[in-house]
Amino acid sequence: MSSAKPPLALSGERFTAVYRLAVDAAEVEARARAIGLEQTVEFPDALIPSDAIREQIVGEIAAITPCARADGGSGFEVSLRYPVEAAGSELTQLLNVLFGNVALQPGVRLQRIELPPALLDGFRGPRFGIAGLRRALASALAPDALHPTRTPPEAAKASSTPPQRPLLCTALKPMGLSPSELAELAYRLALGGIDLIKDDHGLADQPFCRFDERVARCAEAVHRANQETGGHSLYLPNVTAPATAVVARAQRAKAEGAGGLLFCPGLAGLDTMRALADDDALALPILSHPALLGGLAINPGTGIAHGLLFATLLRLAGADATIFPHSGGRFTFTASECQEIADAARASLGTLQPIWPVPAGGMRLARVPELVESYGSDSIFLIGGDLHAGPDLVERCQAFRALVERSADGSVIDRHQ
Amino acid sequence: MSSAKPPLALSGERFTAVYRLAVDAAEVEARARAIGLEQTVEFPDALIPSDAIREQIVGEIAAITPCARADGGSGFEVSLRYPVEAAGSELTQLLNVLFGNVALQPGVRLQRIELPPALLDGFRGPRFGIAGLRRALASALAPDALHPTRTPPEAAKASSTPPQRPLLCTALKPMGLSPSELAELAYRLALGGIDLIKDDHGLADQPFCRFDERVARCAEAVHRANQETGGHSLYLPNVTAPATAVVARAQRAKAEGAGGLLFCPGLAGLDTMRALADDDALALPILSHPALLGGLAINPGTGIAHGLLFATLLRLAGADATIFPHSGGRFTFTASECQEIADAARASLGTLQPIWPVPAGGMRLARVPELVESYGSDSIFLIGGDLHAGPDLVERCQAFRALVERSADGSVIDRHQ
Repeated sequence: MSSAKPPLALSGERFTAVYRLAVDAAEVEARARAIGLEQTVEFPDALIPSDAIREQIVGEIAAITPCARADGGSGFEVSLRYPVEAAGSELTQLLNVLFGNVALQPGVRLQRIELPPALLDGFRGPRFGIAGLRRALASALAPDALHPTRTPPEAAKASSTPPQRPLLCTALKPMGLSPSELAELAYRLALGGIDLIKDDHGLADQPFCRFDERVARCAEAVHRANQETGGHSLYLPNVTAPATAVVARAQRAKAEGAGGLLFCPGLAGLDTMRALADDDALALPILSHPALLGGLAINPGTGIAHGLLFATLLRLAGADATIFPHSGGRFTFTASECQEIADAARASLGTLQPIWPVPAGGMRLARVPELVESYGSDSIFLIGGDLHAGPDLVERCQAFRALVERSADGSVIDRHQ
Repeated sequence: MSSAKPPLALSGERFTAVYRLAVDAAEVEARARAIGLEQTVEFPDALIPSDAIREQIVGEIAAITPCARADGGSGFEVSLRYPVEAAGSELTQLLNVLFGNVALQPGVRLQRIELPPALLDGFRGPRFGIAGLRRALASALAPDALHPTRTPPEAAKASSTPPQRPLLCTALKPMGLSPSELAELAYRLALGGIDLIKDDHGLADQPFCRFDERVARCAEAVHRANQETGGHSLYLPNVTAPATAVVARAQRAKAEGAGGLLFCPGLAGLDTMRALADDDALALPILSHPALLGGLAINPGTGIAHGLLFATLLRLAGADATIFPHSGGRFTFTASECQEIADAARASLGTLQPIWPVPAGGMRLARVPELVESYGSDSIFLIGGDLHAGPDLVERCQAFRALVERSADGSVIDRHQ
């Protein structure tokens, strides 16, 4: 290696991070400058050893505009532009430049980002997205296709038109049931026409419910129900796991005929999810769960804005669908925060697929019309406990499905029914 | 597989999570109960299908006590006890039970945890900790030992008594320097007697500073300085990286003679760090950086308490040292929050090693006496930019070291000098 020092010569392309700052007009420019230093050189401006670094590396201020603050105080939106090379095509480092150190400072919230093609092109994003998951549900990824030794019934083979209605999702729970009890539940949920039957995110590999046995039994149960109904329910086991076990569990899930994966990037890493999504040998839809991660969004003056955290960043990290707590359930997201997530999930983002918003968190059947009204057809409704609140689980699932179909626009009602 | 349903029969051993809730006396018990359900079965109590699950799985309330709240409102500390089996020996799932879903709710902060041996024994924790890193600095892990083809000078061979003073740490920066420029810096920092020379956490694998070249050059430079001085400076490259690249970068770092690793678990996953720490083929000390992760601590009414987040959880995840922003720098942690971190870093935690608190974030040489006073000898002082504020970097490092030695208790002054 030569010890020559080539001059720094970056492309000049930049990506933009917009921060909302709780500061006075007198302070805002200094604070913006400090963030531009903090997130790049992390060095006092006066000590930066070259103008090339100051000009090419340090985050530069593109705009400062006053904005309203939730608490009534003065605030500003500040746009900072960072060199694309600083993020180095890595999601971990992109997150770091956007918000690594300033996450530890009060009064600053990362509101939105704008990434040029030079940066976006480094991310494959969701493998399925909205259109891909609809196709998967119609046929390609149903357990029959994933498990070629199992013979699909003629009814299933024939159904190649994807449903255009909102999708139905539920969770296998509660924790404490055995694999065979969960499989029996999965069977009945599939009989009832639930599209996506996922593990509760608290089902890991506990001694009372081992991953391998659970996944084998539940995948088989959903397959059996599909055989009987001609339906296409998918089973999505939870592969949130220790770093050294994630890929093996996902492979096992695929081998057993799972139709997708549930993953909690807040517990196991955003980039770990990205690696699952990019794995051509897996090629399964990924449903993202907000456990722990959501803590970065809930304080309005700090952290990361709802739409950016629960949708844009998860799309970069390969999620095909994003679960979040809908307003009025057990959590406290507002209707507009939820709308922000749904909008960001389906907004244009380079060539990355739009993804499914999955409102959840204590939803009830009675709210289906409102969910359809709020989120439209390209959304997944996740109802857990309330499906178990009637005398017959299968009938209640059918009622859920009928409600969704009735509430959705007549023109996009599932033609399979 | 049989479809028999064995009754749920857990050990009855439980671990404790203490939450601080911003609620009135009239609401506290219902809120505590709701958390016990949310973090386990995530199911309405009335629908839980068996008493065995209700009794053995659901988090049970152990204590409710009033506590002061920062904003003056009423508050309670609630102790909930969860079955050890619910966490399933996995850090990801332990985090989930402790705080997965409630991280999305306002008015609840995870204050502290108590883990019984049955659970702690599943975690190896820090491989080095305080004593191990002192030994590594004395000889074992100095680049000479890691790189047997390089011959250590007699001076280095002879130094087998670990220093008992606080350790000195700095970062290679700013981003934008080339590998050879960073290596030149590393060389001079090692000449000046800095114990731990880490990559800035923003150095990843950017096109203007590739990981492989940087690590090779910097490791060589620190080795060369050690050869000249008889010192034992360690170089710790940043291996925060995409999920599929972390282990390879750590292995590369080890092969090049790095003396430890820098890692940002908030960017790349707590359990990814745990896997690095548990990797017997690596066996390098790990310095944890709080990027992004810190966002979970900074709002006093939500998130995770400073000591628990920056020390206890990082010990479970294998960190040997924990960087956090000391009060009075560029960040706003209070002195008592910093003390909480230092205490938790060195508190008893089963058989897990105590670890090094690393106060940082805009520290200056002038504050060394105060740092020594606050943190004592078992701590690492990380000074970045201020080392570059004098006319000569090597001399300023020597002044830093002299200050630390002079400020520390005479009885524990480094005997190598």
